[in-house]
Amino acid sequence: MQSAEVKFKKNSLLLALRRYSSAVSDMEQTILLPSLLRDVPSDEVWDNGAAEESCDDLYGNYLILKAIRNTVENSSVSLDDHKTKKTTALNKTLEPLLNTDPETLFHFHLRGLFSVMSDLTKKTQCLTEKYKDIIGVAN
Amino acid sequence: MQSAEVKFKKNSLLLALRRYSSAVSDMEQTILLPSLLRDVPSDEVWDNGAAEESCDDLYGNYLILKAIRNTVENSSVSLDDHKTKKTTALNKTLEPLLNTDPETLFHFHLRGLFSVMSDLTKKTQCLTEKYKDIIGVAN
Repeated sequence: MQSAEVKFKKNSLLLALRRYSSAVSDMEQTILLPSLLRDVPSDEVWDNGAAEESCDDLYGNYLILKAIRNTVENSSVSLDDHKTKKTTALNKTLEPLLNTDPETLFHFHLRGLFSVMSDLTKKTQCLTEKYKDIIGVAN
Repeated sequence: MQSAEVKFKKNSLLLALRRYSSAVSDMEQTILLPSLLRDVPSDEVWDNGAAEESCDDLYGNYLILKAIRNTVENSSVSLDDHKTKKTTALNKTLEPLLNTDPETLFHFHLRGLFSVMSDLTKKTQCLTEKYKDIIGVAN
């Protein structure tokens, strides 16, 4: 497994997916009592305008990050899951995509997925550090 | 290789990437004289409004499909390639994405990449068939 990873380039999507998976494993091994994250505001970890809607405390973040890891590890694309409604609303506002040639679309989504995986990896590491602060473990 | 592939689910991104890679290999093995594709209009294969701009003949399609395969196989994300200008223009019109939470963004790009890979796989197969028509090989 290690020898295969050596081949990965720095900006590799597969490497970004593995890095995320590994960050979530670290998080799970560190956070032995996830319930301590309940009612802790998530604004430091999930720092965008959508935080209130999607996950109102660090425990919510924790569950979402684990769920995304499961999707990443199964590499499964849910064409009809609970996210569909939200994504459909998003697609509606993204009509320029319909007239985009497939090559540009490919690069757009590849770069987008790479970027969001890097962001989620940072959020996972940030949540792990936040838990250490809560239980008083020095970094 | 086969045994590993059995594990993949139907809607798997990794499987979609491998299917594409395999379709391009078939295309390369079939199209022994790519120059025969020169000046053949691409509208049947690359059937969207952007065709004129991005690739004006089947030979152009052939080169693009091979270039995308190389990116897929290296799994490399070009953060600063020749596509950047085009994608930046696209991003500019996609400002709703900036206020989207990372979970929704993840599903959006994962689904988008899966969908564009399926589309590109069909285009590759279609181009291969078109070449067979041109050289008069019965399907």
